[in-house]
Amino acid sequence: MRESIKLIKVKEAIQADNDALAEALRNELRKRRIFLVNLMSSPGAGKTSLLLQTAAALNKSLRVAVIEADIDSAVDTERLADSGVMAVQLQTGGFCHLDVSMVRQGLDSLDIDALDLIFLENIGNLVCPAEFDTGAALDVMILSVPEGDDKPLKYPLMFSKCDALIVNKIDYLGTGLTDFSLDVLSDRVKKLNPDIILFPLSCRTGQGMQDWVNWLSEKIGTFADLFQDRFEK
Amino acid sequence: MRESIKLIKVKEAIQADNDALAEALRNELRKRRIFLVNLMSSPGAGKTSLLLQTAAALNKSLRVAVIEADIDSAVDTERLADSGVMAVQLQTGGFCHLDVSMVRQGLDSLDIDALDLIFLENIGNLVCPAEFDTGAALDVMILSVPEGDDKPLKYPLMFSKCDALIVNKIDYLGTGLTDFSLDVLSDRVKKLNPDIILFPLSCRTGQGMQDWVNWLSEKIGTFADLFQDRFEK
Repeated sequence: MRESIKLIKVKEAIQADNDALAEALRNELRKRRIFLVNLMSSPGAGKTSLLLQTAAALNKSLRVAVIEADIDSAVDTERLADSGVMAVQLQTGGFCHLDVSMVRQGLDSLDIDALDLIFLENIGNLVCPAEFDTGAALDVMILSVPEGDDKPLKYPLMFSKCDALIVNKIDYLGTGLTDFSLDVLSDRVKKLNPDIILFPLSCRTGQGMQDWVNWLSEKIGTFADLFQDRFEK
Repeated sequence: MRESIKLIKVKEAIQADNDALAEALRNELRKRRIFLVNLMSSPGAGKTSLLLQTAAALNKSLRVAVIEADIDSAVDTERLADSGVMAVQLQTGGFCHLDVSMVRQGLDSLDIDALDLIFLENIGNLVCPAEFDTGAALDVMILSVPEGDDKPLKYPLMFSKCDALIVNKIDYLGTGLTDFSLDVLSDRVKKLNPDIILFPLSCRTGQGMQDWVNWLSEKIGTFADLFQDRFEK
Protein backbone atom coordinates (compact mmCIF):
# COMPACT_ATOMS: atom_id res chain seq x y z
CA MET A 1 0.00 0.00 0.00
CA ARG A 2 3.03 2.33 -0.13
CA GLU A 3 1.88 4.23 -3.23
CA SER A 4 -1.54 4.63 -1.67
CA ILE A 5 -0.33 6.17 1.57
CA LYS A 6 1.13 9.03 -0.46
CA LEU A 7 -2.30 9.65 -1.99
CA ILE A 8 -4.05 9.63 1.39
CA LYS A 9 -1.83 12.39 2.72
CA VAL A 10 -2.51 14.59 -0.28
CA LYS A 11 -6.21 13.98 0.10
CA GLU A 12 -6.16 14.85 3.79
CA ALA A 13 -4.44 18.17 3.17
CA ILE A 14 -6.90 19.06 0.44
CA GLN A 15 -9.80 18.07 2.68
CA ALA A 16 -8.56 20.25 5.55
CA ASP A 17 -8.32 23.28 3.22
CA ASN A 18 -11.76 22.47 1.88
CA ASP A 19 -13.31 22.15 5.35
CA ALA A 20 -12.24 25.68 6.25
CA LEU A 21 -13.60 27.07 2.98
CA ALA A 22 -16.86 25.18 3.51
CA GLU A 23 -17.41 26.65 6.95
CA ALA A 24 -16.78 30.15 5.59
CA LEU A 25 -19.22 29.61 2.73
CA ARG A 26 -21.89 28.24 5.09
CA ASN A 27 -21.63 31.33 7.30
CA GLU A 28 -21.71 33.66 4.33
CA LEU A 29 -24.82 32.04 2.86
CA ARG A 30 -26.55 32.11 6.24
CA LYS A 31 -25.94 35.86 6.45
CA ARG A 32 -27.25 36.33 2.93
CA ARG A 33 -30.29 34.13 3.76
CA ILE A 34 -29.68 31.54 1.08
CA PHE A 35 -30.37 27.90 1.86
CA LEU A 36 -27.99 25.50 0.10
CA VAL A 37 -28.82 21.77 -0.11
CA ASN A 38 -26.27 19.19 -1.25
CA LEU A 39 -27.93 16.22 -2.97
CA MET A 40 -25.92 13.03 -3.41
CA SER A 41 -26.58 9.51 -4.74
CA SER A 42 -25.37 6.72 -7.01
CA PRO A 43 -25.76 7.22 -10.76
CA GLY A 44 -29.38 6.81 -11.77
CA ALA A 45 -30.92 6.94 -8.28
CA GLY A 46 -33.10 9.89 -9.27
CA LYS A 47 -31.41 13.16 -8.30
CA THR A 48 -32.71 15.15 -11.26
CA SER A 49 -36.21 13.65 -11.00
CA LEU A 50 -36.37 14.57 -7.31
CA LEU A 51 -35.19 18.11 -8.04
CA LEU A 52 -37.83 18.56 -10.75
CA GLN A 53 -40.63 17.47 -8.40
CA THR A 54 -39.28 19.41 -5.41
CA ALA A 55 -38.78 22.62 -7.39
CA ALA A 56 -42.31 22.33 -8.78
CA ALA A 57 -43.68 22.00 -5.22
CA LEU A 58 -41.70 24.93 -3.79
CA ASN A 59 -41.59 27.31 -6.76
CA LYS A 60 -44.61 29.30 -5.57
CA SER A 61 -43.19 30.24 -2.17
CA LEU A 62 -39.44 30.22 -2.86
CA ARG A 63 -37.03 31.28 -5.57
CA VAL A 64 -35.19 28.06 -6.45
CA ALA A 65 -32.12 27.23 -8.58
CA VAL A 66 -29.97 24.17 -9.20
CA ILE A 67 -26.21 23.90 -9.58
CA GLU A 68 -25.81 20.77 -11.60
CA ALA A 69 -22.49 18.92 -11.55
CA ASP A 70 -21.67 16.57 -14.32
CA ILE A 71 -18.40 15.13 -15.46
CA ASP A 72 -18.89 15.74 -19.12
CA SER A 73 -22.46 16.47 -20.22
CA ALA A 74 -25.31 18.94 -19.80
CA VAL A 75 -28.13 16.36 -20.03
CA ASP A 76 -29.61 17.06 -16.60
CA THR A 77 -29.30 20.84 -16.84
CA GLU A 78 -31.21 20.73 -20.12
CA ARG A 79 -33.87 18.55 -18.51
CA LEU A 80 -34.24 21.03 -15.62
CA ALA A 81 -34.27 24.05 -17.95
CA ASP A 82 -36.91 22.39 -20.13
CA SER A 83 -39.11 22.21 -17.03
CA GLY A 84 -38.53 25.87 -16.19
CA VAL A 85 -36.10 25.31 -13.30
CA MET A 86 -33.19 27.75 -13.23
CA ALA A 87 -30.05 25.65 -13.54
CA VAL A 88 -26.34 26.15 -14.13
CA GLN A 89 -23.98 23.46 -15.30
CA LEU A 90 -20.62 22.68 -13.74
CA GLN A 91 -18.63 20.32 -15.90
CA THR A 92 -16.10 18.78 -13.55
CA GLY A 93 -13.98 17.29 -16.34
CA GLY A 94 -13.37 14.00 -14.59
CA PHE A 95 -13.68 15.15 -10.99
CA CYS A 96 -15.61 12.69 -8.91
CA HIS A 97 -17.07 15.09 -6.34
CA LEU A 98 -17.82 18.75 -5.73
CA ASP A 99 -15.59 20.81 -3.46
CA VAL A 100 -16.15 24.35 -2.24
CA SER A 101 -14.15 26.00 -5.02
CA MET A 102 -16.40 24.35 -7.60
CA VAL A 103 -19.53 25.29 -5.67
CA ARG A 104 -18.30 28.91 -5.56
CA GLN A 105 -17.94 28.88 -9.33
CA GLY A 106 -21.54 27.75 -9.59
CA LEU A 107 -22.75 30.39 -7.13
CA ASP A 108 -20.81 33.13 -8.93
CA SER A 109 -22.70 32.39 -12.12
CA LEU A 110 -26.07 32.92 -10.38
CA ASP A 111 -27.62 36.11 -9.02
CA ILE A 112 -27.79 34.46 -5.62
CA ASP A 113 -29.27 37.39 -3.70
CA ALA A 114 -32.37 36.94 -5.85
CA LEU A 115 -32.63 33.29 -4.70
CA ASP A 116 -33.82 31.55 -1.52
CA LEU A 117 -33.00 27.91 -2.12
CA ILE A 118 -30.16 26.42 -4.16
CA PHE A 119 -29.67 22.72 -4.74
CA LEU A 120 -26.31 21.19 -5.57
CA GLU A 121 -26.78 18.10 -7.68
CA ASN A 122 -23.49 16.39 -6.83
CA ILE A 123 -21.70 13.83 -9.05
CA GLY A 124 -23.37 10.40 -9.02
CA ASN A 125 -21.04 8.61 -6.61
CA LEU A 126 -21.43 7.26 -3.07
CA VAL A 127 -17.74 7.50 -2.18
CA CYS A 128 -15.93 10.77 -2.88
CA PRO A 129 -18.77 13.31 -2.46
CA ALA A 130 -19.21 12.02 1.12
CA GLU A 131 -15.67 13.17 1.93
CA PHE A 132 -15.96 16.78 0.82
CA ASP A 133 -17.98 19.38 2.68
CA THR A 134 -19.64 21.64 0.09
CA GLY A 135 -20.68 24.38 2.49
CA ALA A 136 -24.33 23.33 2.25
CA ALA A 137 -26.77 23.77 5.14
CA LEU A 138 -28.17 20.26 4.54
CA ASP A 139 -26.73 17.06 3.13
CA VAL A 140 -29.35 14.81 1.55
CA MET A 141 -28.81 11.40 0.02
CA ILE A 142 -30.99 9.38 -2.34
CA LEU A 143 -30.84 5.59 -2.32
CA SER A 144 -33.05 3.87 -4.90
CA VAL A 145 -34.70 0.53 -4.21
CA PRO A 146 -33.00 -1.37 -7.08
CA GLU A 147 -29.58 -0.61 -5.54
CA GLY A 148 -30.35 -2.89 -2.58
CA ASP A 149 -30.77 -2.49 1.17
CA ASP A 150 -27.14 -3.52 1.87
CA LYS A 151 -25.66 -0.19 0.78
CA PRO A 152 -25.25 1.27 4.31
CA LEU A 153 -22.88 -1.63 5.05
CA LYS A 154 -20.77 -0.76 2.04
CA TYR A 155 -20.81 3.04 1.88
CA PRO A 156 -21.11 3.92 5.59
CA LEU A 157 -19.58 7.40 5.41
CA MET A 158 -22.24 8.68 3.02
CA PHE A 159 -25.08 7.41 5.22
CA SER A 160 -23.33 8.75 8.35
CA LYS A 161 -23.00 12.32 7.18
CA CYS A 162 -26.45 12.97 5.69
CA ASP A 163 -29.32 14.76 7.42
CA ALA A 164 -31.97 12.98 5.35
CA LEU A 165 -32.16 9.82 3.28
CA ILE A 166 -34.65 9.69 0.44
CA VAL A 167 -35.50 6.12 -0.55
CA ASN A 168 -36.60 6.52 -4.17
CA LYS A 169 -38.35 4.10 -6.55
CA ILE A 170 -40.55 2.54 -3.86
CA ASP A 171 -42.88 1.60 -6.73
CA TYR A 172 -40.34 -1.22 -7.37
CA LEU A 173 -41.22 -2.77 -3.99
CA GLY A 174 -43.62 -5.69 -4.07
CA THR A 175 -43.03 -6.36 -7.78
CA GLY A 176 -41.06 -9.57 -7.15
CA LEU A 177 -38.06 -7.95 -8.87
CA THR A 178 -36.27 -7.14 -5.63
CA ASP A 179 -36.03 -8.39 -2.03
CA PHE A 180 -35.33 -4.87 -0.73
CA SER A 181 -36.71 -4.30 2.78
CA LEU A 182 -37.37 -0.79 4.11
CA ASP A 183 -37.16 -2.12 7.69
CA VAL A 184 -33.78 -3.75 7.11
CA LEU A 185 -32.50 -0.59 5.44
CA SER A 186 -33.79 1.61 8.25
CA ASP A 187 -32.10 -0.54 10.93
CA ARG A 188 -28.79 -0.42 9.09
CA VAL A 189 -28.92 3.32 8.51
CA LYS A 190 -29.98 4.20 12.06
CA LYS A 191 -27.05 2.22 13.45
CA LEU A 192 -24.72 4.53 11.53
CA ASN A 193 -26.71 7.71 12.02
CA PRO A 194 -29.47 7.71 14.66
CA ASP A 195 -30.57 11.26 13.77
CA ILE A 196 -31.14 10.71 10.06
CA ILE A 197 -34.70 10.94 8.76
CA LEU A 198 -35.94 8.62 5.98
CA PHE A 199 -38.38 9.56 3.22
CA PRO A 200 -39.56 6.56 1.18
CA LEU A 201 -41.05 7.93 -2.04
CA SER A 202 -41.45 7.50 -5.77
CA CYS A 203 -40.57 10.39 -8.08
CA ARG A 204 -42.41 8.53 -10.85
CA THR A 205 -45.77 8.14 -9.06
CA GLY A 206 -45.45 11.05 -6.61
CA GLN A 207 -46.12 8.78 -3.61
CA GLY A 208 -44.40 10.10 -0.47
CA MET A 209 -43.20 13.36 -2.08
CA GLN A 210 -45.29 15.61 0.14
CA ASP A 211 -43.63 14.41 3.38
CA TRP A 212 -40.21 15.27 1.98
CA VAL A 213 -41.34 18.67 0.71
CA ASN A 214 -42.97 19.51 4.06
CA TRP A 215 -39.86 18.55 5.99
CA LEU A 216 -37.60 20.56 3.68
CA SER A 217 -39.90 23.60 3.91
CA GLU A 218 -39.80 23.40 7.69
CA LYS A 219 -35.99 23.20 7.67
CA ILE A 220 -35.81 26.24 5.43
CA GLY A 221 -38.32 28.09 7.60
CA THR A 222 -36.31 27.58 10.77
CA PHE A 223 -32.98 28.36 9.12
CA ALA A 224 -31.99 31.51 11.06
CA ASP A 225 -35.62 32.73 10.80
CA LEU A 226 -34.53 33.22 7.31
CA PHE A 227 -37.51 33.62 5.11
CA GLN A 228 -39.82 34.74 7.87
CA ASP A 229 -41.15 37.80 6.08
CA ARG A 230 -41.86 35.81 2.94
CA PHE A 231 -43.59 32.96 4.78
CA GLU A 232 -45.73 35.42 6.73
CA LYS A 233 -47.04 37.14 3.62
CA MET B 1 -10.91 26.30 -9.85
CA ARG B 2 -7.44 27.10 -8.47
CA GLU B 3 -7.60 24.60 -5.60
CA SER B 4 -8.76 21.96 -8.03
CA ILE B 5 -5.90 22.37 -10.49
CA LYS B 6 -3.49 21.41 -7.72
CA LEU B 7 -5.46 18.20 -7.21
CA ILE B 8 -5.46 17.36 -10.92
CA LYS B 9 -1.69 17.51 -11.13
CA VAL B 10 -1.26 15.18 -8.17
CA LYS B 11 -3.73 12.78 -9.72
CA GLU B 12 -1.93 12.82 -13.06
CA ALA B 13 1.41 11.95 -11.48
CA ILE B 14 -0.13 9.12 -9.51
CA GLN B 15 -1.87 7.85 -12.63
CA ALA B 16 1.37 7.84 -14.63
CA ASP B 17 3.10 5.77 -11.92
CA ASN B 18 0.13 3.47 -11.80
CA ASP B 19 0.05 2.99 -15.60
CA ALA B 20 3.63 1.72 -15.60
CA LEU B 21 2.93 -0.66 -12.73
CA ALA B 22 -0.22 -1.89 -14.48
CA GLU B 23 1.63 -2.73 -17.68
CA ALA B 24 4.26 -4.65 -15.69
CA LEU B 25 1.59 -6.60 -13.82
CA ARG B 26 -0.27 -7.42 -17.03
CA ASN B 27 2.90 -8.84 -18.58
CA GLU B 28 3.74 -10.82 -15.47
CA LEU B 29 0.28 -12.37 -15.27
CA ARG B 30 0.39 -13.25 -18.97
CA LYS B 31 3.66 -15.12 -18.43
CA ARG B 32 2.20 -16.92 -15.44
CA ARG B 33 -0.96 -17.72 -17.46
CA ILE B 34 -3.39 -16.03 -15.15
CA PHE B 35 -6.33 -14.17 -16.62
CA LEU B 36 -7.34 -11.09 -14.60
CA VAL B 37 -10.73 -9.42 -15.19
CA ASN B 38 -11.60 -6.00 -13.72
CA LEU B 39 -15.33 -5.67 -13.03
CA MET B 40 -16.75 -2.18 -12.48
CA SER B 41 -20.21 -0.67 -11.94
CA SER B 42 -22.35 1.68 -9.85
CA PRO B 43 -23.33 0.52 -6.37
CA GLY B 44 -26.01 -2.15 -6.57
CA ALA B 45 -25.74 -2.89 -10.30
CA GLY B 46 -25.02 -6.58 -9.60
CA LYS B 47 -21.25 -7.19 -9.53
CA THR B 48 -21.37 -9.87 -6.84
CA SER B 49 -24.44 -11.55 -8.35
CA LEU B 50 -22.71 -11.70 -11.74
CA LEU B 51 -19.55 -13.15 -10.20
CA LEU B 52 -21.53 -15.84 -8.38
CA GLN B 53 -23.25 -16.93 -11.60
CA THR B 54 -20.10 -16.68 -13.71
CA ALA B 55 -17.96 -18.61 -11.23
CA ALA B 56 -20.61 -21.34 -11.04
CA ALA B 57 -20.59 -21.66 -14.85
CA LEU B 58 -16.78 -21.77 -15.16
CA ASN B 59 -15.79 -23.63 -11.99
CA LYS B 60 -15.63 -27.00 -13.74
CA SER B 61 -13.07 -26.01 -16.38
CA LEU B 62 -11.16 -23.24 -14.59
CA ARG B 63 -9.82 -22.47 -11.14
CA VAL B 64 -11.47 -19.17 -10.23
CA ALA B 65 -11.00 -16.63 -7.41
CA VAL B 66 -12.29 -13.15 -6.63
CA ILE B 67 -10.46 -10.16 -5.17
CA GLU B 68 -13.24 -8.17 -3.61
CA ALA B 69 -12.75 -4.47 -2.93
CA ASP B 70 -14.92 -2.78 -0.41
CA ILE B 71 -14.50 0.46 1.45
CA ASP B 72 -15.40 -0.84 4.82
CA SER B 73 -17.22 -4.19 4.89
CA ALA B 74 -16.83 -7.86 3.99
CA VAL B 75 -20.48 -8.43 2.98
CA ASP B 76 -19.74 -9.49 -0.60
CA THR B 77 -16.76 -11.66 0.28
CA GLU B 78 -18.91 -13.54 2.77
CA ARG B 79 -21.61 -13.96 0.12
CA LEU B 80 -19.05 -15.37 -2.34
CA ALA B 81 -17.46 -17.64 0.27
CA ASP B 82 -20.90 -18.95 1.29
CA SER B 83 -21.35 -20.06 -2.32
CA GLY B 84 -17.97 -21.79 -2.41
CA VAL B 85 -16.14 -19.15 -4.47
CA MET B 86 -12.60 -18.44 -3.27
CA ALA B 87 -12.51 -14.76 -2.34
CA VAL B 88 -10.20 -12.33 -0.60
CA GLN B 89 -11.25 -9.02 0.82
CA LEU B 90 -9.46 -5.72 0.26
CA GLN B 91 -10.79 -3.05 2.55
CA THR B 92 -9.81 0.19 0.87
CA GLY B 93 -10.58 2.36 3.91
CA GLY B 94 -12.22 5.15 1.97
CA PHE B 95 -10.43 4.72 -1.35
CA CYS B 96 -12.80 5.10 -4.24
CA HIS B 97 -11.03 2.86 -6.75
CA LEU B 98 -8.46 0.05 -7.02
CA ASP B 99 -4.94 0.80 -8.17
CA VAL B 100 -2.18 -1.67 -8.98
CA SER B 101 -0.62 -1.58 -5.51
CA MET B 102 -3.93 -2.64 -4.00
CA VAL B 103 -4.42 -5.35 -6.63
CA ARG B 104 -0.92 -6.66 -5.84
CA GLN B 105 -1.88 -6.93 -2.18
CA GLY B 106 -4.87 -9.02 -3.18
CA LEU B 107 -2.81 -11.24 -5.49
CA ASP B 108 -0.15 -11.73 -2.81
CA SER B 109 -2.74 -13.19 -0.47
CA LEU B 110 -3.74 -15.84 -3.05
CA ASP B 111 -1.79 -18.84 -4.34
CA ILE B 112 -2.10 -17.42 -7.84
CA ASP B 113 -0.14 -20.11 -9.67
CA ALA B 114 -2.91 -22.50 -8.64
CA LEU B 115 -5.47 -20.25 -10.34
CA ASP B 116 -6.54 -19.60 -13.95
CA LEU B 117 -9.02 -16.77 -13.66
CA ILE B 118 -9.16 -13.96 -11.10
CA PHE B 119 -11.89 -11.34 -10.95
CA LEU B 120 -11.39 -7.94 -9.37
CA GLU B 121 -14.64 -6.66 -7.98
CA ASN B 122 -13.84 -2.95 -8.04
CA ILE B 123 -15.43 -0.30 -5.79
CA GLY B 124 -19.01 0.58 -6.81
CA ASN B 125 -18.33 3.85 -8.63
CA LEU B 126 -18.52 4.93 -12.30
CA VAL B 127 -15.95 7.71 -11.98
CA CYS B 128 -12.64 6.95 -10.29
CA PRO B 129 -12.18 3.25 -11.17
CA ALA B 130 -12.34 4.26 -14.86
CA GLU B 131 -9.20 6.35 -14.41
CA PHE B 132 -6.94 3.70 -12.91
CA ASP B 133 -5.53 0.78 -14.91
CA THR B 134 -5.55 -2.28 -12.62
CA GLY B 135 -3.30 -4.45 -14.81
CA ALA B 136 -6.26 -6.61 -15.82
CA ALA B 137 -6.47 -8.32 -19.22
CA LEU B 138 -10.09 -7.29 -19.59
CA ASP B 139 -12.17 -4.38 -18.29
CA VAL B 140 -15.85 -5.20 -17.92
CA MET B 141 -18.61 -2.87 -16.82
CA ILE B 142 -22.11 -3.60 -15.56
CA LEU B 143 -24.92 -1.11 -16.08
CA SER B 144 -28.27 -2.10 -14.58
CA VAL B 145 -31.56 -1.17 -16.22
CA PRO B 146 -32.91 0.91 -13.28
CA GLU B 147 -29.92 3.27 -13.59
CA GLY B 148 -31.19 4.55 -16.94
CA ASP B 149 -30.00 4.53 -20.55
CA ASP B 150 -28.50 8.05 -20.25
CA LYS B 151 -25.45 6.93 -18.28
CA PRO B 152 -23.03 6.84 -21.28
CA LEU B 153 -23.67 10.59 -21.69
CA LYS B 154 -22.73 11.22 -18.08
CA TYR B 155 -19.88 8.78 -17.39
CA PRO B 156 -18.27 8.55 -20.85
CA LEU B 157 -14.79 7.51 -19.71
CA MET B 158 -16.04 4.33 -18.06
CA PHE B 159 -17.97 3.26 -21.18
CA SER B 160 -15.01 4.21 -23.40
CA LYS B 161 -12.45 2.06 -21.67
CA CYS B 162 -14.36 -1.21 -21.22
CA ASP B 163 -14.11 -4.28 -23.45
CA ALA B 164 -17.59 -5.49 -22.57
CA LEU B 165 -20.75 -3.95 -21.15
CA ILE B 166 -23.12 -6.18 -19.24
CA VAL B 167 -26.64 -4.74 -19.08
CA ASN B 168 -28.04 -6.37 -15.96
CA LYS B 169 -31.62 -6.53 -14.59
CA ILE B 170 -33.26 -6.84 -18.04
CA ASP B 171 -36.16 -8.45 -16.16
CA TYR B 172 -37.07 -4.85 -15.21
CA LEU B 173 -37.72 -4.04 -18.90
CA GLY B 174 -41.35 -4.04 -19.99
CA THR B 175 -42.65 -3.72 -16.41
CA GLY B 176 -43.79 -0.11 -16.86
CA LEU B 177 -41.36 0.91 -14.09
CA THR B 178 -38.74 2.25 -16.49
CA ASP B 179 -38.48 3.75 -19.99
CA PHE B 180 -34.99 2.27 -20.48
CA SER B 181 -34.28 1.36 -24.13
CA LEU B 182 -31.57 -1.15 -25.05
CA ASP B 183 -31.39 0.37 -28.56
CA VAL B 184 -30.89 3.90 -27.23
CA LEU B 185 -28.24 2.65 -24.80
CA SER B 186 -26.45 0.70 -27.51
CA ASP B 187 -26.32 3.72 -29.85
CA ARG B 188 -24.90 5.92 -27.11
CA VAL B 189 -22.30 3.38 -26.04
CA LYS B 190 -21.14 2.55 -29.58
CA LYS B 191 -20.58 6.23 -30.30
CA LEU B 192 -18.07 6.29 -27.44
CA ASN B 193 -16.62 2.85 -28.03
CA PRO B 194 -17.41 1.11 -31.34
CA ASP B 195 -15.58 -2.09 -30.32
CA ILE B 196 -17.44 -2.73 -27.07
CA ILE B 197 -19.68 -5.78 -26.89
CA LEU B 198 -22.99 -5.68 -25.01
CA PHE B 199 -24.50 -8.54 -23.00
CA PRO B 200 -28.08 -7.86 -21.88
CA LEU B 201 -28.86 -10.33 -19.09
CA SER B 202 -30.54 -10.92 -15.76
CA CYS B 203 -28.54 -12.41 -12.91
CA ARG B 204 -31.84 -13.06 -11.13
CA THR B 205 -33.51 -15.11 -13.88
CA GLY B 206 -30.36 -16.34 -15.67
CA GLN B 207 -31.57 -14.98 -19.03
CA GLY B 208 -28.64 -14.03 -21.27
CA MET B 209 -25.97 -15.39 -18.90
CA GLN B 210 -24.74 -18.06 -21.31
CA ASP B 211 -23.74 -15.58 -24.04
CA TRP B 212 -21.55 -13.69 -21.56
CA VAL B 213 -19.99 -16.89 -20.20
CA ASN B 214 -19.28 -18.17 -23.72
CA TRP B 215 -17.64 -14.91 -24.75
CA LEU B 216 -15.52 -14.78 -21.61
CA SER B 217 -14.44 -18.43 -22.06
CA GLU B 218 -13.40 -17.66 -25.62
CA LYS B 219 -11.38 -14.62 -24.49
CA ILE B 220 -9.63 -16.74 -21.88
CA GLY B 221 -9.01 -19.50 -24.41
CA THR B 222 -7.28 -17.18 -26.87
CA PHE B 223 -5.29 -15.36 -24.18
CA ALA B 224 -1.72 -16.31 -25.19
CA ASP B 225 -2.95 -19.89 -25.91
CA LEU B 226 -3.04 -19.91 -22.23
CA PHE B 227 -5.10 -22.78 -21.01
CA GLN B 228 -4.77 -24.84 -24.17
CA ASP B 229 -3.76 -28.06 -22.45
CA ARG B 230 -6.63 -27.80 -19.98
CA PHE B 231 -9.22 -27.02 -22.68
CA GLU B 232 -8.00 -29.90 -24.86
CA LYS B 233 -8.38 -32.49 -22.13
